[in-house]
Amino acid sequence: MSQVSRRGLLSLAGAGGVGAAAGLAAGFLGHDAVAEAAGPANDTVAFYGDRQSGITTPAQDRLHMAAFDVITEDRAELIQLLKDWTEAAAALTAGRETGSTGAVGGPADAPPEDTGEALGLNAARLTLTFGFGPTLFEKDGTGRFGLAGRRPEALIDLPHFPGDGLQEQRTGGDLVVQACSDDPQVAVHAIRNLARIGFGKTRVRWSQLGFGRTSSTSRSQQTPRNLFGFKDGTSNVKAEDAGLLDAHVWVPGGGKATEAWMEGGSYLVARRIRMHIEIWDRTSLREQESLIGRTKAEGAPLSGGTEFTAPDFDAKGPDQETLIARDSHVRVAHPSHNNGVRMLRRGYNFTDGSDGLGHLDAGLFFIAFVKDPRTHYVPMQLAMARQDTLSVEYLQHTGSGLFAVPPGVRPGGFFGEGLFTA
Amino acid sequence: MSQVSRRGLLSLAGAGGVGAAAGLAAGFLGHDAVAEAAGPANDTVAFYGDRQSGITTPAQDRLHMAAFDVITEDRAELIQLLKDWTEAAAALTAGRETGSTGAVGGPADAPPEDTGEALGLNAARLTLTFGFGPTLFEKDGTGRFGLAGRRPEALIDLPHFPGDGLQEQRTGGDLVVQACSDDPQVAVHAIRNLARIGFGKTRVRWSQLGFGRTSSTSRSQQTPRNLFGFKDGTSNVKAEDAGLLDAHVWVPGGGKATEAWMEGGSYLVARRIRMHIEIWDRTSLREQESLIGRTKAEGAPLSGGTEFTAPDFDAKGPDQETLIARDSHVRVAHPSHNNGVRMLRRGYNFTDGSDGLGHLDAGLFFIAFVKDPRTHYVPMQLAMARQDTLSVEYLQHTGSGLFAVPPGVRPGGFFGEGLFTA
Repeated sequence: MSQVSRRGLLSLAGAGGVGAAAGLAAGFLGHDAVAEAAGPANDTVAFYGDRQSGITTPAQDRLHMAAFDVITEDRAELIQLLKDWTEAAAALTAGRETGSTGAVGGPADAPPEDTGEALGLNAARLTLTFGFGPTLFEKDGTGRFGLAGRRPEALIDLPHFPGDGLQEQRTGGDLVVQACSDDPQVAVHAIRNLARIGFGKTRVRWSQLGFGRTSSTSRSQQTPRNLFGFKDGTSNVKAEDAGLLDAHVWVPGGGKATEAWMEGGSYLVARRIRMHIEIWDRTSLREQESLIGRTKAEGAPLSGGTEFTAPDFDAKGPDQETLIARDSHVRVAHPSHNNGVRMLRRGYNFTDGSDGLGHLDAGLFFIAFVKDPRTHYVPMQLAMARQDTLSVEYLQHTGSGLFAVPPGVRPGGFFGEGLFTA
Repeated sequence: MSQVSRRGLLSLAGAGGVGAAAGLAAGFLGHDAVAEAAGPANDTVAFYGDRQSGITTPAQDRLHMAAFDVITEDRAELIQLLKDWTEAAAALTAGRETGSTGAVGGPADAPPEDTGEALGLNAARLTLTFGFGPTLFEKDGTGRFGLAGRRPEALIDLPHFPGDGLQEQRTGGDLVVQACSDDPQVAVHAIRNLARIGFGKTRVRWSQLGFGRTSSTSRSQQTPRNLFGFKDGTSNVKAEDAGLLDAHVWVPGGGKATEAWMEGGSYLVARRIRMHIEIWDRTSLREQESLIGRTKAEGAPLSGGTEFTAPDFDAKGPDQETLIARDSHVRVAHPSHNNGVRMLRRGYNFTDGSDGLGHLDAGLFFIAFVKDPRTHYVPMQLAMARQDTLSVEYLQHTGSGLFAVPPGVRPGGFFGEGLFTA
């Protein structure tokens, strides 16, 4: 691993001028000489810790998420892959390359160890968050990698929801990596290099870019807008809500011994939700606000107040109808109608070309972290698919994944280590 | 059209607090009251002028380009569409919405005139650049909109190039809009609202996001890297090169009277180039540099010097072979081997999910502006498709479009006006 940050490298090249850059290119400078010249990287999110980053980290602007199928059945190869990915993630999130690039040494007669397109870019708050899909543990009823008995009960096969239009090539996966960064080239570079490192052991099953975050995960952030033009994630669980995180997001201790490796982790629900934006765009403002249950401009509940005012579902207008309609999104999705459950959402807007029918293929790539999808996702999604007119008429789920996200990594460890050692 | 910038609106809402925002939402404030509160928008690129913006404008970070098929055959409807798009483009590039959003007035019982997802974002240097495809003038041998005799000779049907793997749904189009911005949500919002305005007259034929620019169009910019990890566009024609722009990019005057409407315009070549990055990533540094003809770190020609040193194609090494290989990209593409032609490139990196075979579907969305594709694109692309080993072994063109980009718009006019009035 190179110990020099890209920013440090650039500074060095700038200070030393052309000669220094040429020397670096030819590998004349060893790692130590380079490392000395590198200052601390800015714009980085701490990699090691009790929890994985990229969950409560204030949501970055851009996403590249990819799910991988593991094509080896060799347990040792899988473990080595996770170690290699962990080492690469530590470097990438620090703004370093995953190895030699041709710019910081490395032999000319071997492929560069890093693909190089992020040279000159800083880490831009890159986080890499790893998870395990159900099919890593067992497939077609057969255990894999000796993990059959270790699949957490919460890592269910998600049920079919009414209206689902899931596409096989956008669904599932043995492993998932969520790369978030304020610079999309940095996020894509990270996923691409993890794919490169996994060559021969993994295949990319699906890959999704998101260009605009649709949730805030910190009170320091403004609430962003989704492609319906409405603020999204107003009542999201945020990093500052330690009690809510413990109650709804983090997997608690005290469970089954075979699941102790997930303590302090979480479950990632990914749903690619196509929005029928062309139909939406021909819907009146009143209807849009009624479907959402909030005003478009401010995001205030239709029962009154401002964005962060709690909705009053019983408040009625002069016509004796509730101000917030019974089939509105905010009502159906509200914790008070879902056994009090909350989630930490971290989704992104997407636009993936056209749909071949004259429309943009656009929508929301929904990402949520929850302590248990059986209590914290499935019931709510069932309710939404049945009762929420917005979901029924304007949304279609086209991709899906559920992944067990193990706790954080300590120096010398690797993602999911507890799964293989306990 | 609303006369208030989004930034101005936000300031107003902030200053007035919740009441002001709620008032705006309900449409209580007229346009004039709002406009008075708005200051001048920042981060905007001038919309009106002799040339369209988005060509020599210093390349923004993100792209959303869409091609449209016109589904009406009514000339007056087409003209009205171009007028509506021009008016919307003037607003969008100034950081304003395309009309009421539910936040700045507009009736509750009608659909908002703007979709709203860019509320709170500034223009982020948005430019919108419009062009006409060959099929706007004639289709299947039949003229359209009375334009059959007005198709410029340079607006050819591009030939099939060796190795082309063009996909119908990524190729062609009657109209094209290039939206560039430093904020992808702003670019997507612009395309989406133009599609909305065109509803019933146009269909989205293809749509492409680009996440990282691969060319500089101004000497004020660093040379960025493509997904091969190499600097791209080092020898690009830049905004400061007035003589080169006149010689190679802008359509000159003095041509046929039926083509006078294109004087001061340009031709946009769009090619979606899939890169086989997984194969590239297993290629040695030496081979990569030999294929490109430049060093990976610095981008210097292999004949020596620094990034901007002119390549010496005759310089030989101790083995009496030329230092820059005969089949290298830099040699085959160099003006000295292409009758001296230059182009203004403005491409972007893309990653569109996976290819279904375990790889990322990634590459370069090539965009070039040239005065005449018959002299300035076709010969070079033929040479590259035949002689450039990089192109033959590592690239495949999967989408294509050629568009006539008329000159700029003056207040009160509309894009391509000369085509309909002369």
